Amino acid sequence: MPAFVAMASRLIGDYLIERLRKLGVKHVFGVPGDYVLSFFDLLQKSPLKIVNTCDEQGAGFAADAYARVRGLGVVCVTYGVGGLKVANTTAQAYAEKSPVVVISGAPGMREREKNPLLHHKVREFNTQKCVFEQLTAASTVLDDPQTALQEIDRVLHIALTHKRPVYIELPRDMVAVAGIPHYKQAQIREASDPVALRAAVAEATAMLNRAKQPVILADVEIHRFGLQKELMRLIEKANIPAAATILGKSVIGENHPFYLGVYAGAMCREEVRRYVEQSDCVLMLGAFMTDTNLGIFTARLDSARCIAATTERLSIGYHYYDGVRFKDFLGGLLKAPLRRRAAPKIPRPPQTPTFHSSGKKKITVRRLFQRLNSFLRENTMVISDVGDALFGAADLNIHQHTEFLGTAYYASMGFAVPAAIGAQLGRPERRPLVLVGDGAFQMTGMELTTAARHRLNPIVIVLNNAGYGTERHIQDGPYNDVAPWNYHLLPDVIGHGCGFSVDTEEELEHGLRLAEMETETFTILDVRLDPMDHSPALDRLARNLAKRL
Amino acid sequence: MPAFVAMASRLIGDYLIERLRKLGVKHVFGVPGDYVLSFFDLLQKSPLKIVNTCDEQGAGFAADAYARVRGLGVVCVTYGVGGLKVANTTAQAYAEKSPVVVISGAPGMREREKNPLLHHKVREFNTQKCVFEQLTAASTVLDDPQTALQEIDRVLHIALTHKRPVYIELPRDMVAVAGIPHYKQAQIREASDPVALRAAVAEATAMLNRAKQPVILADVEIHRFGLQKELMRLIEKANIPAAATILGKSVIGENHPFYLGVYAGAMCREEVRRYVEQSDCVLMLGAFMTDTNLGIFTARLDSARCIAATTERLSIGYHYYDGVRFKDFLGGLLKAPLRRRAAPKIPRPPQTPTFHSSGKKKITVRRLFQRLNSFLRENTMVISDVGDALFGAADLNIHQHTEFLGTAYYASMGFAVPAAIGAQLGRPERRPLVLVGDGAFQMTGMELTTAARHRLNPIVIVLNNAGYGTERHIQDGPYNDVAPWNYHLLPDVIGHGCGFSVDTEEELEHGLRLAEMETETFTILDVRLDPMDHSPALDRLARNLAKRL
Repeated sequence: MPAFVAMASRLIGDYLIERLRKLGVKHVFGVPGDYVLSFFDLLQKSPLKIVNTCDEQGAGFAADAYARVRGLGVVCVTYGVGGLKVANTTAQAYAEKSPVVVISGAPGMREREKNPLLHHKVREFNTQKCVFEQLTAASTVLDDPQTALQEIDRVLHIALTHKRPVYIELPRDMVAVAGIPHYKQAQIREASDPVALRAAVAEATAMLNRAKQPVILADVEIHRFGLQKELMRLIEKANIPAAATILGKSVIGENHPFYLGVYAGAMCREEVRRYVEQSDCVLMLGAFMTDTNLGIFTARLDSARCIAATTERLSIGYHYYDGVRFKDFLGGLLKAPLRRRAAPKIPRPPQTPTFHSSGKKKITVRRLFQRLNSFLRENTMVISDVGDALFGAADLNIHQHTEFLGTAYYASMGFAVPAAIGAQLGRPERRPLVLVGDGAFQMTGMELTTAARHRLNPIVIVLNNAGYGTERHIQDGPYNDVAPWNYHLLPDVIGHGCGFSVDTEEELEHGLRLAEMETETFTILDVRLDPMDHSPALDRLARNLAKRL
Repeated sequence: MPAFVAMASRLIGDYLIERLRKLGVKHVFGVPGDYVLSFFDLLQKSPLKIVNTCDEQGAGFAADAYARVRGLGVVCVTYGVGGLKVANTTAQAYAEKSPVVVISGAPGMREREKNPLLHHKVREFNTQKCVFEQLTAASTVLDDPQTALQEIDRVLHIALTHKRPVYIELPRDMVAVAGIPHYKQAQIREASDPVALRAAVAEATAMLNRAKQPVILADVEIHRFGLQKELMRLIEKANIPAAATILGKSVIGENHPFYLGVYAGAMCREEVRRYVEQSDCVLMLGAFMTDTNLGIFTARLDSARCIAATTERLSIGYHYYDGVRFKDFLGGLLKAPLRRRAAPKIPRPPQTPTFHSSGKKKITVRRLFQRLNSFLRENTMVISDVGDALFGAADLNIHQHTEFLGTAYYASMGFAVPAAIGAQLGRPERRPLVLVGDGAFQMTGMELTTAARHRLNPIVIVLNNAGYGTERHIQDGPYNDVAPWNYHLLPDVIGHGCGFSVDTEEELEHGLRLAEMETETFTILDVRLDPMDHSPALDRLARNLAKRL
C-alpha cells in the first residue's frame, strides 16, 4: 500500500491500538492463538506491552483489575478456545462495572465463505459474538472497513461511559486493512437536563439540611468514575459522616475521622448498622443494591429517607428524576447551600491494637487479620478473593482510597492472584497484599508464574482451611473439601518467589517480615487454619445464606 | 411431604439423578457453590460419585472425556461463576459431538421476584441460559414442576441422539419439589424412511461394487454412536481398507491388516494420501469436513466419487437423501450384496522399530514418539492435547479402538490432563498416557491433584519446548514463550505422584520404566525439547496455516 494512503487512512489494527494507548492503556493481557497472531505481532511492535498469562482466565481477571485501577483494561485472545474462556471474567466485569475491552481474533472474512468447519468454531461464525452480547454493554465485529474505525470508537465510548465490558472481534484478514480515509472521531457529549438537575439538587439539599443525622453510603461507582475527591469534598463541606459498602470498600480513606466503616446490614459492626439505619437521610452514592452489599437483604434502608444516586438513575424518597447525570448531581451538591454541621460524633472503626505475637500459638483467622491490619503500609493494595478473604478483609484499615479490590458482588473464585498482576502493572507504585482461600488459589494461583515473569512482588496469603470455607458454614459435605497442596513449595516449581508455611503466630511473623524485605519477587504464605475457623462476618453471612437454601 | 405423594411423584432433583444413573453415568464432575449446594447434597447421598476438580474448567473437560468413552458425561456447577467457566469446554463438546450434560444451580424462583441483585448474577436471571443456548443442542430451566420431568427427558434425549451437550438449569428451590404424579417417560422412536433407505443403500452398494479401489474414511461419529463393531464387520465383509481422520483416530484397531493410517490431506503420510485420493469410491462414515481433518483444506476428495454419511445427512455424489439415519444406512450396507474382494494390498503404517536408547543423546520429538510407540500396551489409552502432542500422536499405533482421545477440531488447549481423569474414571481398566505441551499444561495441569485424589495413575508426558510450539512455526514472537516450570517437582506441591525431568534418551527410558511400575499414582515426565523441534506433521500443518494468516 503506498505511503500516502496509509497517512490519510489508518489500518484497522493500528487504529485500535492507537485509541487504546490514548485512553491510558499500557498493557494488554492475553494468550495468543493463530486467529489473533497477526494482531499480536502488531501489538508487539507497538508501545503496548503484551502480558502473557498461563490461561486466558488469568488474563481476563488481570484485565478486570487493571480496568478497576486505571480506568480501562484489555484482554486479547483467540477465537473460541480463547474467547469463551473469558466468558466468566467478562461477566464479572459486567456485574461489577469494570470497563474491560475483550479483543478476540477470528477467522478471516474470506475464509468464512461457504461456511466451512474451521478449527475453534463452535456452531456458526457468529456464535461467540452472540455469547458476548449477553455479557457486555456493546459488541462489534470489525468486518467492514467502511465502519470499522467508527465501530471501535462506538464500543470504547460505551465502555468508558457505562464502565462495563465491551467486545471487539477482529477477523484476521481485517487487521491490516485500511479504514476510511480522513476518519475523525466524533465528539460525543452527554449532559444533564439543566432544569431537572437544579430541581434534584434543590430537593436533596433541603432534605439533607433538614436531617438530624444524615449519612453518606458510598459504593463502587465512586471508584469507577474517579469521584473520590468530590466525595471527600462533600463529606468535609457539610461534615456528614460516611460509610462504605463492601464492594465500595476503600472508596474513602479509612483513617478519615468521618469514616464509619463498612455498612452491610446484619453483617457489619453493630454500631455502624445502628448509625446508618437510624439516620433520617441516607445519601447513597453510586450504590448497587446487591445482596452482599445489603447483608443478604438484612439491611433496613427505607426508601422514604434515602437519596439514591447512581449513573443509572436518581431517586429521592419514592420518586425519580430523569436526565440527571451522577457526576453532575454530585457536582451540584458541592455547589449547593448545604448546611455545615458541627463535626459529627460517630462510632469510629476500632483502633488497630499493637499486635504481639504469641509465639507458638496456633494461628487463627481473627489473629491473622489483626496482624495483617498492622502490616498495611501506605503503598499496600489489598486484593481479596471470595469468602473469608473478603469478609475478614472488610475490617482491615485501608489507608488510601482505591486501595482495596475485591469481587464482592459477582464473587467469582480465582480473581485475586491474577488481579494482583493487573493491579500492580496498572499501579506500579503499589504492592499487592493478596488474600485468597485455598479453593480459589487452586483455580488460578499458578498465575504467580506471570507475576514472576514481570518482576512483580505480591505478597500472597493463602487462607488454607482445606476447603470451601463459606460453604462449610452453609451446608457441609465432602464436596467442600479441597485437596491439600504444599503451597509454600510452589516457588520450586515456578523457579521464582519465596514460600513459607505458617502454623503458628511466630511463623506468621517470620514470613511477613521476610516478605516485606523480599521486594524482587512474590512471596506466598501458606497459612494453615482450622477448617471450621472463620471471621465473625462470615459467621453472620453464612447464617443468612443458609436460611435461603 | 407425605410418603405416598413421594411414591407417586418424584422430586425433580431425584428424578434427574435417577435418569442419569440409568443412562450409565456413575460420576459427576464439578465444583460446588451455594446455588447448587442442595443438589450436591442430593448427589452425595445418591449412588453417583462427585468428582471435585480444582477449577470448573477441569470439570468441563473431564466430563467431555467421560462422555466420549462412556456415552454420557455430567458437569455440575453453580450459577454464573461456575456455569460461565464451562462455556469453553461446552463449546468444545458441541463442536466435537460429545454428549455432556451441564447442570447448573441457580437462584430459587421465589428469590427472583422483583429482580433483585443476587450475587453471581450477570445481567438478567436468564443471561446464563441465553449463553448456553448458543453452545448446546438443547437447554431448559426447571422452573415449573408441571413440566420439569418431561423437560429432563427431552434434553437428555437430544444429548443422546445428537451427541451434543445440553444445559439444565436447576433453581435451588426446585430441587426438592415434586414433579407431576405418575409421570411416565415418553418413548421416542426415530426411524428412517424405509423407501429412501432402500434406495440409498442400493445406490451406495452399486457404487462400491463398481469401484476398483474403494476405501473407507472413518471419523468421530463412529466413536460417538458406538458403531465400531459395525464398521469392522463392513470392512471385513467386503475387504475394503480403511483410513481414519485425526479426530476419528483409533476408531479402527490400528493393528488391523486393512488399516491404512490417518488420512489428512497434505498432512498425512504420502502413501495414505495417494491411496485415498486415487480411490474411485470413498465411503466417508461419520466424517466431519473440518479444516484439520482435511489437512487445512489440502485434501482432494471429489464429491463425485464420495459417499458421505453422517448423522446429519447422507450424500452420494452430488445428491442427498432425506430421512436416512446413519445407523440404519450402515446396517443396510451390512445386509447389502456387497462384493467381497480379494484382500487388498495397502500401504500399512510403518512397523514400530525396536527402540534402542542412545544413552545421553538429547531427546527429540521424533525419538520421543518412536519410544512411546513401543511403550503402548493393550490397556493404554492415549490422550493428546493440542499441537505436537496431537500431531506427533497421529502416527502412534493405537492397539484397540476408542483408545485415542484428542480435541482435533475445536482444539482447546488444556484438555488432556483433566480429560485423563474423566477417561480413566469412565474406563477404569485403561491407563491414560497423556501427551501435553507445556503451554497447555500450565492451563489445567494442576488437575493432577484431582487425579491423585481419586487414585488415578495417568502417565503425563509434558512436551516442554518452552512455548506455543505450533505458533512458533506459523509466526514467532516473544508472545509464544511460555515461562519455564520445574514440572517434575509438582508432586512435591500436590503431595502425590512421581516426577522426572528428561533431557536425554536414557532419562526417558528410566522415567518410563518407573512410570510403568508406579501404578498407584500419577507420573509426570518433563521432557525438555528444543524450542524449534517438532514432528514432521506439525511442520506440514504450520506451513499450511501460515499461508492463511
